[in-house]
Amino acid sequence: MNEINNLRREINKIDKELIDFLIKRKTFSDRIISAKKSQAISVYDKKRELEIITSLKNEFIGKINPALIEGVLREILFYSKSEYYKLNNYYSNDLNGLLDKSPILIAGPCTIESEEQLSGIAAHLFNNGIRLLRGGAFKPRTSPFSFQGLEEEGLKIMKSVAEKNNMFAVTEFLDSRQLETYYDYADVLQIGSRNMFSYGFLKQVGKKTAVDKKPVLLKRGFNATLNEFLLSAQYIINEGNPNVILCLRGIRTFEQIDSQMRNTPDLASILELKELTDLKIIFDPSHACGDAKFVVPTAVAALGLGADGLIIETHTNPQDAVTDGKQSIEPAELERVIDYINRNY
Amino acid sequence: MNEINNLRREINKIDKELIDFLIKRKTFSDRIISAKKSQAISVYDKKRELEIITSLKNEFIGKINPALIEGVLREILFYSKSEYYKLNNYYSNDLNGLLDKSPILIAGPCTIESEEQLSGIAAHLFNNGIRLLRGGAFKPRTSPFSFQGLEEEGLKIMKSVAEKNNMFAVTEFLDSRQLETYYDYADVLQIGSRNMFSYGFLKQVGKKTAVDKKPVLLKRGFNATLNEFLLSAQYIINEGNPNVILCLRGIRTFEQIDSQMRNTPDLASILELKELTDLKIIFDPSHACGDAKFVVPTAVAALGLGADGLIIETHTNPQDAVTDGKQSIEPAELERVIDYINRNY
Amino acid sequence: MNEINNLRREINKIDKELIDFLIKRKTFSDRIISAKKSQAISVYDKKRELEIITSLKNEFIGKINPALIEGVLREILFYSKSEYYKLNNYYSNDLNGLLDKSPILIAGPCTIESEEQLSGIAAHLFNNGIRLLRGGAFKPRTSPFSFQGLEEEGLKIMKSVAEKNNMFAVTEFLDSRQLETYYDYADVLQIGSRNMFSYGFLKQVGKKTAVDKKPVLLKRGFNATLNEFLLSAQYIINEGNPNVILCLRGIRTFEQIDSQMRNTPDLASILELKELTDLKIIFDPSHACGDAKFVVPTAVAALGLGADGLIIETHTNPQDAVTDGKQSIEPAELERVIDYINRNY
Amino acid sequence: MNEINNLRREINKIDKELIDFLIKRKTFSDRIISAKKSQAISVYDKKRELEIITSLKNEFIGKINPALIEGVLREILFYSKSEYYKLNNYYSNDLNGLLDKSPILIAGPCTIESEEQLSGIAAHLFNNGIRLLRGGAFKPRTSPFSFQGLEEEGLKIMKSVAEKNNMFAVTEFLDSRQLETYYDYADVLQIGSRNMFSYGFLKQVGKKTAVDKKPVLLKRGFNATLNEFLLSAQYIINEGNPNVILCLRGIRTFEQIDSQMRNTPDLASILELKELTDLKIIFDPSHACGDAKFVVPTAVAALGLGADGLIIETHTNPQDAVTDGKQSIEPAELERVIDYINRNY
Repeated sequence: MNEINNLRREINKIDKELIDFLIKRKTFSDRIISAKKSQAISVYDKKRELEIITSLKNEFIGKINPALIEGVLREILFYSKSEYYKLNNYYSNDLNGLLDKSPILIAGPCTIESEEQLSGIAAHLFNNGIRLLRGGAFKPRTSPFSFQGLEEEGLKIMKSVAEKNNMFAVTEFLDSRQLETYYDYADVLQIGSRNMFSYGFLKQVGKKTAVDKKPVLLKRGFNATLNEFLLSAQYIINEGNPNVILCLRGIRTFEQIDSQMRNTPDLASILELKELTDLKIIFDPSHACGDAKFVVPTAVAALGLGADGLIIETHTNPQDAVTDGKQSIEPAELERVIDYINRNY
Repeated sequence: MNEINNLRREINKIDKELIDFLIKRKTFSDRIISAKKSQAISVYDKKRELEIITSLKNEFIGKINPALIEGVLREILFYSKSEYYKLNNYYSNDLNGLLDKSPILIAGPCTIESEEQLSGIAAHLFNNGIRLLRGGAFKPRTSPFSFQGLEEEGLKIMKSVAEKNNMFAVTEFLDSRQLETYYDYADVLQIGSRNMFSYGFLKQVGKKTAVDKKPVLLKRGFNATLNEFLLSAQYIINEGNPNVILCLRGIRTFEQIDSQMRNTPDLASILELKELTDLKIIFDPSHACGDAKFVVPTAVAALGLGADGLIIETHTNPQDAVTDGKQSIEPAELERVIDYINRNY
Repeated sequence: MNEINNLRREINKIDKELIDFLIKRKTFSDRIISAKKSQAISVYDKKRELEIITSLKNEFIGKINPALIEGVLREILFYSKSEYYKLNNYYSNDLNGLLDKSPILIAGPCTIESEEQLSGIAAHLFNNGIRLLRGGAFKPRTSPFSFQGLEEEGLKIMKSVAEKNNMFAVTEFLDSRQLETYYDYADVLQIGSRNMFSYGFLKQVGKKTAVDKKPVLLKRGFNATLNEFLLSAQYIINEGNPNVILCLRGIRTFEQIDSQMRNTPDLASILELKELTDLKIIFDPSHACGDAKFVVPTAVAALGLGADGLIIETHTNPQDAVTDGKQSIEPAELERVIDYINRNY
Repeated sequence: MNEINNLRREINKIDKELIDFLIKRKTFSDRIISAKKSQAISVYDKKRELEIITSLKNEFIGKINPALIEGVLREILFYSKSEYYKLNNYYSNDLNGLLDKSPILIAGPCTIESEEQLSGIAAHLFNNGIRLLRGGAFKPRTSPFSFQGLEEEGLKIMKSVAEKNNMFAVTEFLDSRQLETYYDYADVLQIGSRNMFSYGFLKQVGKKTAVDKKPVLLKRGFNATLNEFLLSAQYIINEGNPNVILCLRGIRTFEQIDSQMRNTPDLASILELKELTDLKIIFDPSHACGDAKFVVPTAVAALGLGADGLIIETHTNPQDAVTDGKQSIEPAELERVIDYINRNY
C-alpha cells in the first residue's frame, strides 16, 4: 500500500496543477467571450472548437488516448460558454404587456372549427380574464388523410373573433410558405413540437419576426433534450427576434407503451430549464397528458414548479371537438385553474 | 358517394350489434369474477385467456386476419378485469398508524455510515415530527467495486438508533438470502427499483411478510410501465401480504442523454396510478431528480398531485456522504417541505 | 368450478358471434375501400373514424366502459385499412434506372466543402461503380452557431461535379423556401430525419415533385414509429409523387446515455418495414452508428436483412472533414462493402 | 479579431500543458493499477475517486465551477481504467468444450411443459448437432396470475431429457433460494433480463458458481446500458467465476409503442460490446423480435455482426406452446440457421 500511497500523492499534485490551468484558461476564454460580444460575433464557434480538439489530438498522437483529450476538452469548452443562454428576453407592448404578466394564460380550442364555436369559447375565456386565444388553422396530423384544419378560412375566423373580443391570436404555422402568406393573422406565432428540429423553418421564422419582434411560442420537440430545445430557440433569436417563449408539452418515453397519458409530462423540466435560461417557460398540460381528467392538477403542478404560464386546450363542447376532444377541458374546469391562480398570485 | 353511404349504414348496424355483444359478454365475465372471488380463485388466468384467443384464431383460420381477433380479444379481456387493482390495502398497527397518516414521511441518509451519523440525522428528523427513518445497509451499486454498504453492522446501527429515537426502520434487502437472515432489523421492508422485476425475490418477500404483514415499500423499476409496477405489487400481495406501498422514483428516458437530472421525475404518474389502484403511493424526489437543488419543489409538486407521502434522502452533511451526497438535502431544506405540509394538510 | 365453466361456455358462444360480425364488417369495409379507390377518394378518413367511435360511445353511455368501445373499434379500424401501404412505387428513368437496381448505392461526404474535395471523392466513387453522389449544402446543425453549409455555392459545386462525373446529385433541402429556389440542383431530394414530422414542408415537397416525379429520399425521424414514418411518406405520395424511398438511420433510445454509437441502429426495422410497405428501404449506417469503425459491418448487416440499398458518408480525408468526420469512411473501407455486394448480388 | 487571436494563442499553450499533465498522470495511474493487480486489490475504487473529486472541489471553491472540476476528473478517471474489462474468460471442460466452439448454439422451448414435449424437441436439436438445451422451469412472468412454470418437476424433466440425449441443460433461476435448492439441475445457469440489476442475487450466483466455475449466461437488462451490463457481469466474476457469457436480447424503446416487435433488437450492440470485453457474446433473436417470422434473419444478422453464438426458442409445435409460442420457431426454421452456419463457419 505504501507504493500506492506514494503514487497517489503524485497524482494529487498533478490534479491540483491541472485545475490551476483550468482556472487560468477560463480567464482567457471569458475575455474572448467579452471581446466577441462587444464585436457582435457569435460566441459559439463549433468549427474553432473542433479545430482545437483535432489539432491537439494530432499533436499528441501515440502519447495518450485521443478520446481522453476529446473528452476533457469537451468538458472544458462546455463550461467555458455555459452562462450563455442567460439572455434577457423582452416583449413588445403590442400585446398590452400580456406576456410580461405572471402567469401567462393562453387558452382556446385545438382546432378552429367555425365562427360560432370560436366565438362561444372566446366569450367564456374573456369573462375569465384570458386575453390570449389559441386555435389552429393548420393542423399537423400524423396521417395525411386526417382533417388538416380550415386553413385560410380558419385564420380569418380567428382574426375576426380575436378582434371582436379584444383578444390576441396565438396560432401555428407549419412551414415557410404559410409563414409568408399568412403572417399577419397571428399575434403570437406558434411553432409546434414536430417542427422544433426544422432548422430551415426556424431561421425563416426568426428572419420574418425580426422586423416586428412578434413573439414566438416554441414548443419542445417530444424527443428533444433541453439543450437541443434551447438551441432551437437560439436559431430564432440569432436572426434578430429575442421574443421567444418556450413551451413544454410532454415527451415520448417507454411509458406510452402502456399508459393512458399521450406523453410523459415533463413537469420537472421546468426546474432544470429555469436554471439554464431566462426565457419565459410555459407548460401545455393538454398535450402533455392527452386526457382532460389529468389537465387541471397537472396545470397547477406546473405553476407550483415555477412555470411562467400555461397554454390549455379548452372547448365548450369537448365531445364534439373535431380534434383533441379527449384532452380539451370545459370552461368550468378552466375556472379551477383560475381559482388557483387568484388564490396564489 | 351513395354506395359508400349505404355501406356505411350497414357497418353502423354491425357496430351496434357488436357492442351489444360486448355488454352481454361483460355481464358474464363479471359473474365469473364474482364466482372466482367467492371461491378465492385468482381472477387473472392468462392461460385461459391464451386458450380463448388461440382457439378462436384456429377456428376462424383463413376467414379473418388472426391479428384482428387477437387485438380485439385482448382489449375485451383487459377491460373485463380492469377494476381489479382496486383492492383495499390496510396497515397493521405495529407502526403506530404512521402509514395511515397523510402524508407519510420517510427520511434519512442513503447509506448508514456510522452510529454518530445516523443518530445526528435521526435527532433532527424526530424534532421535525418524522418517525420513519430510512437508511441503507446493503447498497445496490452499479459497480461491484463501489462501496456496498456496512451490511450487518449497518443494520445493527439502524435498529439501535431507531429504537433510541422512538422511530421505525425503513431499509432495503437485495435478495432472498438477506431477507431470511436479517428480516427482524426492518420495520418497513424496502424493495429497490432494480429488483422490481425480480419475481422470484418478490414471491419470497410476499411469503415471508405474509406471516406478520410487515409493510413493504416497493419502488417502481426505472423502466417499468405502471401496469408492470402494479403486477409486481400483486406478486407480493398474492402471497398474503396486502401491505404494499408503491414508491415512484423517476424513470429512464432519452432526457438522461443530456440532463442534470439523474432520472425523469414521473410526477404525473401519480395521477394515473391513483386511478388504477387504492394502494398508497409515495414519491422519492431524491432519486427522481438526483440533485438536492431540485428536491424540495419536486417533493411539494408530488404532494400537490396527490401523492400519499414522500421518502427523502436527508443528511446533516451531504458533501461528506459516502453515497448520493449530491441528491441529499440538509435538515433545513427538509423543514421547507414540512412547512408546506403544515400549511396545507 | 361448474358455475364458472357454464359461464365460460356462454362467453365462448358470444366470442364466436362477435367474430362472425367482424368478418361481416370486413366485407363491407373492403367494399368501401374499393369504392373509394375507384373514385380516387382517400382511404383513410380519420374524421369518419372518430365519428364512428364517438357516436357509439355516446349511444352506449352508462352501459359499457367507453374506453372498451374505443379500444375495440380502433383495432377493427386499424385492420380494415392495414393493406393500405402496399402501394407499388415506381421510378422515372431520369436516373438511368439507378433506383431500380439492387442494391441502390449512394455515397459521398456529409458536407460539400469545396470543388476539389467533392471531385476527389466523386472520382473514387465513380471508379467503384457508384453513380449516386450525396453531399449537403444546407446542414441541419443542432446549434445555430455551427457551420451551416456552403448553401447555394455548395449546390453549384455539387451540380457541376455530378455532371462532370456522370453522376446524380442527392442533396437535402431544409424548408419550403429552399425547395422553391434551388429545386433543380437536386436529382434526388433528401428530406432529413429532423423534418420527417414537418408536415407542412412534406406537402410542399409532394406538390413540387408531383410535376416531374423527382425521387424523394425520406429519412426516418429519430423518434418516429414505423407507422408515423409511413404516414409521412404518404404525405408526399398523396400530393402526387409515388417515388419515395424510405431511409432508416438509427433511433434515439436510452442507449445514448452511455454509448459510443450516436444512435441505436434500427437494423431490425428493415424486417418490419418490409412487411408494411413496398416502398424501397435503404439504410444509413453512418448516422445510425456515428462512428466509422462500425459502418462497414452495419452496412453489410443491413443488406443481409433485406435493405434495398445504402447511403454511406464517404470522405477521402475523414479527419479533415468539416462535419461528421468521425462517422465518414474512406474509399478503401467502402470497397469492402462493394466487395460484399459483388460476391452476393 | 486581433485581440481574440492573441487570447486564443494563450489558450492553445495552456491546452498543450494540460495534456502534458494528462500524460504524466496516466503513467502514475497505470503504475497504481499494476501495483493493485500484483497485490490482488480491486482496481476500481469509487470511494477514492469520490475523495479525489470532492477534495479538489472543496479546495478550489469559489475559484472555478465545481461542475467543471468534476466533469474533467470523471473523464480522466474513466480513461485511467478503461482497459479494465478486457479480462480473458475461460470455460471448463465440463461441457465438452461446447462453449469454446464458434458459434455457440443453444436451443429449446421457452417453458418445459412435459417430458414428451422436451424429448421431442431435444431429439430434433440433437439431430441438428445442437448439444445445449434450453428450457425454463421457473418463468418470470409479468403477471403473478400467469403460469409460473413446472418448477422442480420441470427441472427433473430437463435433467433427465438432457442426459438421455447426451445434451447439457441451460436453465434459469430467479432468486438466491432457488439457486441453493436446485443448483445441480443446471449445466449452464441462466440469469434473466429482469434480474440483471439484482446485485444481491448476482453476488450469490458468483459465490455459488465460484466453486465449480459453472458457466453463467447473463442476459442484458432490457433497459441497461452496455456499461451497466458489463458491471453486472463483473459482480459475478468478482466472486470468483470468470465463466460469464453475455446475452443480448433486445431493449425497450419508444418503438414498442407501435410495433410488431416485442423489443428493439440490439444487433449493433454486438459491435460495441466486442470492443469493450473479451467475454463471449451471444444473441437471443427470439426475445429481441418476439415474433417467429423475424427470428431467422435476425439470427443470421447477429452472427454476421460477430456474435459468438445464439440462443433460440424452438418448439415442435409453437402454436401449442404454453408460453412464447409466437416467438418460437419450428425445427425446419432452425435448420435454415444451421445451414447458414455450415456454409459460413
